[in-house]
Amino acid sequence: MINKNEIQEQIVCAVDAVRRTNPLVGSVTNSVTINFVANAQLAVGGSAAMVYLADEGEFLSGVGGAFYINIGTIIPLYEQSLPHIAGKLYEFGKPWVLDPVAVGIGTLRSCILTQFKAYKPSIIRGNASEIIALAGLWGLDKATKSNVRGVDSTDAVSSAKASAIALAKWTGGAVAVSGATDLVTDGSVVVFSHGGSHYFEKITGAGCSLGGVAAVFAAVANPFVAALSASAIYNLAGQRAEQKATGPGSFQSEFIDELYKATPEDVANNHFEIEEI
Amino acid sequence: MINKNEIQEQIVCAVDAVRRTNPLVGSVTNSVTINFVANAQLAVGGSAAMVYLADEGEFLSGVGGAFYINIGTIIPLYEQSLPHIAGKLYEFGKPWVLDPVAVGIGTLRSCILTQFKAYKPSIIRGNASEIIALAGLWGLDKATKSNVRGVDSTDAVSSAKASAIALAKWTGGAVAVSGATDLVTDGSVVVFSHGGSHYFEKITGAGCSLGGVAAVFAAVANPFVAALSASAIYNLAGQRAEQKATGPGSFQSEFIDELYKATPEDVANNHFEIEEI
Amino acid sequence: MINKNEIQEQIVCAVDAVRRTNPLVGSVTNSVTINFVANAQLAVGGSAAMVYLADEGEFLSGVGGAFYINIGTIIPLYEQSLPHIAGKLYEFGKPWVLDPVAVGIGTLRSCILTQFKAYKPSIIRGNASEIIALAGLWGLDKATKSNVRGVDSTDAVSSAKASAIALAKWTGGAVAVSGATDLVTDGSVVVFSHGGSHYFEKITGAGCSLGGVAAVFAAVANPFVAALSASAIYNLAGQRAEQKATGPGSFQSEFIDELYKATPEDVANNHFEIEEI
Repeated sequence: MINKNEIQEQIVCAVDAVRRTNPLVGSVTNSVTINFVANAQLAVGGSAAMVYLADEGEFLSGVGGAFYINIGTIIPLYEQSLPHIAGKLYEFGKPWVLDPVAVGIGTLRSCILTQFKAYKPSIIRGNASEIIALAGLWGLDKATKSNVRGVDSTDAVSSAKASAIALAKWTGGAVAVSGATDLVTDGSVVVFSHGGSHYFEKITGAGCSLGGVAAVFAAVANPFVAALSASAIYNLAGQRAEQKATGPGSFQSEFIDELYKATPEDVANNHFEIEEI
Repeated sequence: MINKNEIQEQIVCAVDAVRRTNPLVGSVTNSVTINFVANAQLAVGGSAAMVYLADEGEFLSGVGGAFYINIGTIIPLYEQSLPHIAGKLYEFGKPWVLDPVAVGIGTLRSCILTQFKAYKPSIIRGNASEIIALAGLWGLDKATKSNVRGVDSTDAVSSAKASAIALAKWTGGAVAVSGATDLVTDGSVVVFSHGGSHYFEKITGAGCSLGGVAAVFAAVANPFVAALSASAIYNLAGQRAEQKATGPGSFQSEFIDELYKATPEDVANNHFEIEEI
Repeated sequence: MINKNEIQEQIVCAVDAVRRTNPLVGSVTNSVTINFVANAQLAVGGSAAMVYLADEGEFLSGVGGAFYINIGTIIPLYEQSLPHIAGKLYEFGKPWVLDPVAVGIGTLRSCILTQFKAYKPSIIRGNASEIIALAGLWGLDKATKSNVRGVDSTDAVSSAKASAIALAKWTGGAVAVSGATDLVTDGSVVVFSHGGSHYFEKITGAGCSLGGVAAVFAAVANPFVAALSASAIYNLAGQRAEQKATGPGSFQSEFIDELYKATPEDVANNHFEIEEI
């Protein structure tokens, strides 16, 4: 089994490689948090390009290092563009992150998410309810029940463990469950990443931008290390920003500052535990 | 007639109830200020979910406590989705807030707004020009003339009083006119809420997010108290944020912080006057 | 040839006129930075109205002082609306700013940009790669080669000089190339505007909002003075904000504050050099 030191070394490499190489990451993402996602991606050292059209997503899939798909605020256009882009990412062997926001609401959303199963996203990031619901939708874990309410999770992170493992085994990638303590798994190991801030629930986009940042790291590291690096830098920056913030408004700008200032060693040393499955 | 103490007690209850129950509010809102709307809704204690599709809006109308419709940056998709969602809100008896941004510009905008008349929004929030124009469009007050210029008001709040009362009498709900002093009416009483900041006109979204926050309060209080609570917390937080801000950029984050920090008593004690009609 | 003092006097007049007259500027712009564009336009003293529909753009073209078109995050709707709006702006003789974001990516984007040639935007603002690519697309400078990568420029500002001059000669307006030092030309004179901040590359929307602000100035000044005033206020505010910021998050709000606080004289005195062609 992989040990803590090895993981930390790989996190150092990932954070450092992003800062040095400024990887381009394309995104199709929701209109609520699109600005925050882009700014978070830039703060950690990536380059961001957001599109909606199929051919533009395909182009960025080809030239970029990774891609981020977030299905919040879906529009009819996505029916054509998202499966096309996901298909190209799979065909090109490019890493991509899926954020199944509000899975279970609406027909088109379920229809698109169902099609994504075949294109095996390298990283799936969601809250506990979303991870459980997606594993259910894909027929990978029908035992666990989900309680999605709008875009919020009403389930605890731990309750999504079986679903997360099932999803990771299917994709061969990693799954990250966001919550008070984040859970990241590649299907064989589970890591719990600590830190963060209570303000994460008082601003919109903490989850979406974490997914976008995971895509930046996925351009330079394997899905498991990328997902873990993203969770670690979020938990670190969240904790630091909370100490300086006087409310959720100031927290947002402090948080982006801390994402920008975190060193590779800082990120690697953020508290996490490993659990063999 | 309702007296000041009774109103203040109800504001305390509304602000407190939102903090305790974290009501879910769905929105269809413009792309310019969508992030600010969501963050304001979260700051006062609500939960925000933004959608564009008819079936998703219908779902949130059913499970949420209230809904917010802002027709800024309309797209052709709204032709189907907005009347459908408004119709379901009316059918379900769910409170909803209408923000008739830029009423009078464009054919589709007028067409959609005309259809909303039958679905009686619980709260209508706009600047003076928008309230006058909407009352004219709905044939409720043809005497007053509106001067909409883009998304700005060129009319004084007081000039919209007759239109606001006419609209409130039609809907049976409340109407809030935003300006230097805000006017809120349920058709039988007019309240003037004081405070705010000159920065409200130097940032985008002060009005939109006020509408979104009114929807959060409408999930736990009657339309009149909800509209008044929203105006009061905005006027209070605006005043406090202005004292700490060094410009419109810092004002935005200070303002969100102050929305978050305001206590129910603070909000209820924000200066207002009652005028019988 | 125009001398430095004359230019400075015209910048003073432009910045002052915007503050006094609060010109209305309509925009069709991308969803990533739409909020930042509007807030920057308000901070310098303009009024902002964002739309997507053809008839609404036409209306704002008629009543507004200038218009801003940014083709980032294009959607199928733009195929009809953008050429229509640009055509009306040309017909009405209204100044408009084109931001050819990511020119070269996707079929629709090239198709729309090609049509804009006939409608001669008063100001074209882009990074070096975009300016070179647009001059190539319009057949005005086929000698220079562009290296667009997503939305980033991989070319130096100086390498776009010939393309910028060729574009300005075609439109009869001005061209602004953004980079470490900004280049602004009207086809007969080239001005280099100094200052800015390394954070401009670490936030999303520095370029877009510069284009939006150029449109605000274009409502009160000729295209060359407008483009130069916009570059000058950006370089000044960027430099000042950087001194107060502790990262890209705080930089954003400091920057908006500095845009708001800059006096006409401050802006006119920001360092620039003139070069005769």
